[in-house]
Amino acid sequence: MLRIAVIGTGRIGRMHAENIAAHPRAALAGVYDIHTPSAAETAEKLGVTRFDSAEALIASKDVDAILIASSTATHADLIEAAVAAGKPALCEKPIDLSLARVNACAAKIKGTSVPIMLGFVRRMDKGHAGVQAAIASGQIGDLHQVIITSRDPDMAPDAYMEVSGGIFRDMTIHDFDMARFMLGEDVTEVSATGSRLVKPGLMEKLGDYDTVTVVLKTASGKQAIINNSRRAVYGYDQRVEAFGSKGMAISENHAMTKVRLFNAEQTEAAPPLLNFFIERYDDAFAAEIGAFVDAVENGTTPPITFEDGRQALILAEAAIRSVAEGRTILTKDIG
Amino acid sequence: MLRIAVIGTGRIGRMHAENIAAHPRAALAGVYDIHTPSAAETAEKLGVTRFDSAEALIASKDVDAILIASSTATHADLIEAAVAAGKPALCEKPIDLSLARVNACAAKIKGTSVPIMLGFVRRMDKGHAGVQAAIASGQIGDLHQVIITSRDPDMAPDAYMEVSGGIFRDMTIHDFDMARFMLGEDVTEVSATGSRLVKPGLMEKLGDYDTVTVVLKTASGKQAIINNSRRAVYGYDQRVEAFGSKGMAISENHAMTKVRLFNAEQTEAAPPLLNFFIERYDDAFAAEIGAFVDAVENGTTPPITFEDGRQALILAEAAIRSVAEGRTILTKDIG
Amino acid sequence: MLRIAVIGTGRIGRMHAENIAAHPRAALAGVYDIHTPSAAETAEKLGVTRFDSAEALIASKDVDAILIASSTATHADLIEAAVAAGKPALCEKPIDLSLARVNACAAKIKGTSVPIMLGFVRRMDKGHAGVQAAIASGQIGDLHQVIITSRDPDMAPDAYMEVSGGIFRDMTIHDFDMARFMLGEDVTEVSATGSRLVKPGLMEKLGDYDTVTVVLKTASGKQAIINNSRRAVYGYDQRVEAFGSKGMAISENHAMTKVRLFNAEQTEAAPPLLNFFIERYDDAFAAEIGAFVDAVENGTTPPITFEDGRQALILAEAAIRSVAEGRTILTKDIG
Amino acid sequence: MLRIAVIGTGRIGRMHAENIAAHPRAALAGVYDIHTPSAAETAEKLGVTRFDSAEALIASKDVDAILIASSTATHADLIEAAVAAGKPALCEKPIDLSLARVNACAAKIKGTSVPIMLGFVRRMDKGHAGVQAAIASGQIGDLHQVIITSRDPDMAPDAYMEVSGGIFRDMTIHDFDMARFMLGEDVTEVSATGSRLVKPGLMEKLGDYDTVTVVLKTASGKQAIINNSRRAVYGYDQRVEAFGSKGMAISENHAMTKVRLFNAEQTEAAPPLLNFFIERYDDAFAAEIGAFVDAVENGTTPPITFEDGRQALILAEAAIRSVAEGRTILTKDIG
Repeated sequence: MLRIAVIGTGRIGRMHAENIAAHPRAALAGVYDIHTPSAAETAEKLGVTRFDSAEALIASKDVDAILIASSTATHADLIEAAVAAGKPALCEKPIDLSLARVNACAAKIKGTSVPIMLGFVRRMDKGHAGVQAAIASGQIGDLHQVIITSRDPDMAPDAYMEVSGGIFRDMTIHDFDMARFMLGEDVTEVSATGSRLVKPGLMEKLGDYDTVTVVLKTASGKQAIINNSRRAVYGYDQRVEAFGSKGMAISENHAMTKVRLFNAEQTEAAPPLLNFFIERYDDAFAAEIGAFVDAVENGTTPPITFEDGRQALILAEAAIRSVAEGRTILTKDIG
Repeated sequence: MLRIAVIGTGRIGRMHAENIAAHPRAALAGVYDIHTPSAAETAEKLGVTRFDSAEALIASKDVDAILIASSTATHADLIEAAVAAGKPALCEKPIDLSLARVNACAAKIKGTSVPIMLGFVRRMDKGHAGVQAAIASGQIGDLHQVIITSRDPDMAPDAYMEVSGGIFRDMTIHDFDMARFMLGEDVTEVSATGSRLVKPGLMEKLGDYDTVTVVLKTASGKQAIINNSRRAVYGYDQRVEAFGSKGMAISENHAMTKVRLFNAEQTEAAPPLLNFFIERYDDAFAAEIGAFVDAVENGTTPPITFEDGRQALILAEAAIRSVAEGRTILTKDIG
Repeated sequence: MLRIAVIGTGRIGRMHAENIAAHPRAALAGVYDIHTPSAAETAEKLGVTRFDSAEALIASKDVDAILIASSTATHADLIEAAVAAGKPALCEKPIDLSLARVNACAAKIKGTSVPIMLGFVRRMDKGHAGVQAAIASGQIGDLHQVIITSRDPDMAPDAYMEVSGGIFRDMTIHDFDMARFMLGEDVTEVSATGSRLVKPGLMEKLGDYDTVTVVLKTASGKQAIINNSRRAVYGYDQRVEAFGSKGMAISENHAMTKVRLFNAEQTEAAPPLLNFFIERYDDAFAAEIGAFVDAVENGTTPPITFEDGRQALILAEAAIRSVAEGRTILTKDIG
Repeated sequence: MLRIAVIGTGRIGRMHAENIAAHPRAALAGVYDIHTPSAAETAEKLGVTRFDSAEALIASKDVDAILIASSTATHADLIEAAVAAGKPALCEKPIDLSLARVNACAAKIKGTSVPIMLGFVRRMDKGHAGVQAAIASGQIGDLHQVIITSRDPDMAPDAYMEVSGGIFRDMTIHDFDMARFMLGEDVTEVSATGSRLVKPGLMEKLGDYDTVTVVLKTASGKQAIINNSRRAVYGYDQRVEAFGSKGMAISENHAMTKVRLFNAEQTEAAPPLLNFFIERYDDAFAAEIGAFVDAVENGTTPPITFEDGRQALILAEAAIRSVAEGRTILTKDIG
């Protein structure tokens, strides 16, 4: 049993805590949150220890590994602390909003044998992973284009948007990782287009965008196209399409149920899509815990690494610069 | 060029006339209808002769073959006349509402080498024919069950219903033929269930049903299940499913367009189904003319024979008796 | 917390035990199985008591309610024992293979206020329940036809088939309940057709069938059509279609993933269906525990009652007689 | 009856000729092709005059209107000749590979009242037009993103590729028009990415690309994303997706038949997509003739104008420049 403690007991942290508790080879070793009532509630509900500080949690001899689900600004510090304590960590994305901070963290933990895994949960989705497997197995031949459609059901509250780091670092970051997962080779060029269509006033004020398209290209010419919107009224739209020389594989959306309605106006109408990521990726979040436990127990590299987190942020930086400058950005010029 | 003349210029007859005119190896040789204005209008629109009688049409030296699309009561006489004149005929279903009359006709034309083809147009549909091909090629292994869903978009006017011959002879007749097409062996048992749900009053008055289920069984145990309704508000529902030891093949419905709509209430909503048979089976009606021309030109047996028409009627008789007697009817006891 | 103990720790019993343990308002109060090693393994894995007998389990003051997942022959006795002890029970289907035994059990527990719930889990499926809700809410108007397609991925071992009670009592029983759930009124007539196509030799020997069709009819004329096969190579086929005066609702199948493959031979190819019921109905099994807990806590009638179990068995008896006699059976003549 | 003569009797020209002949309010008034045997064969098959020159055809008093389906290099000259003769013309796309030549033609025919219609046939497709109607009617709210997937089933012969004008002018030109049809406002920015993945050697030699992505943006921020490939092994991939503030509308692909296959390896497998444009857009090509006849008869502006053809070419020029310069191109800087 791998005893994993959770830092951060917001909505995502609580879900992780429950998944750890339910995993047959993991045990929930306690929780901590800067907001004590939240931690206390989770600790009581799940019948585990509430630690008084992240430091105490990391240091505890009853804790084998750490799951970091606290606010983004704390991630890099906690990763460094976990590595220092020799304890494997599974960290929610992104590592940090600042590439400089990520690079500093990378330098600090360089060469460590302590497993650090990044929480790009979508790689654990059976549908998306199935598309990647179709690529890897050669079923669709040489990969030519990847199309990632990724739209949130609704924009987060304004207060969140103000500290989100902008759409590319906050939302597209998942899609950058998905593109890298599918492409299987380094992205060399990034072209991005941003629009303000959902909440133009707020976006203008923040210098942010709510509707973006990013085109990535690898050295061999493979293309990945990401389209994002902060608001899709029909639910959380999460599709991945991989097109190659011998075919195509698509990971389709998940509707709320498998019911189809027919009447005088329409046929085959399905309900809205699952809303939101905790529902849509529930299996994937559970599988993520399993993958982390496997890596730690087997001493293998986690399937999603710190470097994956850093590379996704490089693509975000390139996209931001591409929109600002109206030109294609070479990733070698970033970071 | 096969010169085909059309008897009966109602909606179906006119469509056949146009398909003949458009076929590269057929020519429309004229039309006749007991209702002269209808024939005159069609003759003028398509630039062909209007004959003064069915006899004159059949006898004409400018007519090589006959398409019979007049009212059901005339079919058997016209088939006999065509055979007597040595002219191939393509006859709309059913041959007659009376099995005795059909048997008499069969006796009269027995041994003729004049090709007589029955207009069970659905066999010519690419989807349904594709399912049959999947069975015939062994793709789904040994056939176990056939499920035919066949629902009209709406009931015909009461005046028609009164002379229709009842749902089994008038509507299910197509599905009996489809079942035979799929099963590939003789049906030995028929069990039918009838309900009055769409227009209970009228059905009661006519001793007819508007909602029926028929289960057919062959000597080897293959089953075919037909479900019919006289009214499906979402359009003309025409599905065929063949289930076997190695898989399943399904012929799906045709919606009006390939547009799918997503909004806050629903996703993937398609428009209603094509309505009605002339729209749904337009390709099949054109292919039917081609198959008739092929059979006549090549001297081969038409793909759908007089005997197919007779067998479908036997199943209709068995179904009628099954509902009346509340038991399974053996087809060998019919006719 | 409702403390539920589980009798029977075969595959289904273990799954129920895990679902009870995971439910926020239930606790697993122990297990018992006549096969001690199985019970011991489950007890150890889930950290609960292993009882030495069903009697001890039922009598225990630490047990509030019972889940019966032992072999069919024990169900009626255990229900009677639970009622005698005043403890609510959730019992796997069927109550018994003998209608006489079920009727005797019904007589014995008549008037009890102890909640007894039957495990017709499919009613708890979001898709099927969504179809039922579409009927109940009037979305599809007056119900006319229900089509239930229910095919197992493969036949159980011969040894099981020999004691299964036959396809109608063992397999179709679920579909009889589903039909009753959808129809919302009593079935008055049953017509069944049976074939031996999957394992003809074994079926012949057992006097059983592996491929059946059953048509049910209510007093008002509503029809339900069930088609069953003991082996569908593409997976567990579970579809429900409800057709009415204003439209249709369909509960579709669940494929293993949402991946679609396109290549030179085919497009939109999905993987096989989920296989088997524990995978396909995992959410429903969890919801079933929730519904039982709700009924017990709120003192309400369970959503699926003992009488539902008895009625389904009556339909099975009628189907058996219908096949044997080649005629429609009136349910009033059963039991 | 509008008497339309056809210039160019290659595969597309012949199809247009047949559609004209079949249209109830049009008549085929003759054909001409620089390759006399081709014109002679078509003239004989369809029973019409073969003209000796395009000039004679245009001048003929028996010709009311012209359909231009000859090679691209002749289009602008023929349009000018038709306008000079006061005869309406329906011209295949593109007007010319050179924007300068198109501009010169535009200047020459400026102010004419002779209807000139461009053959961007996809606007006539029921599916794509249905998506545009969903936008125009407000069904999906304010339009935010358009995604156009457009992949040919295979690359044309090398000889054709050498004179095609490059992928943007030859293939993407259709998608540029589709994007404009959907966006409903002027495109101001163009960003394009090109790769050589299907036939890298040939593409390198020609300075052309076979796999491209183009992102268009309007002044208000609406985005359109086009992805193209010269070879999709599963058939002619033609999808349009429009995403807006209140929903989404999608025009889906057309498979060869509506058959779905299920077996032990897969479920719901459909056949490959229709291949190629004459099959996929057959209804649209027929509707195009109808729209042309309507515009001429009613004296209304054709639904697709010369200026539409010119604007699509401007977008092609911008895309070419964007790839070459690695930056976003403003359309106001083109032409």
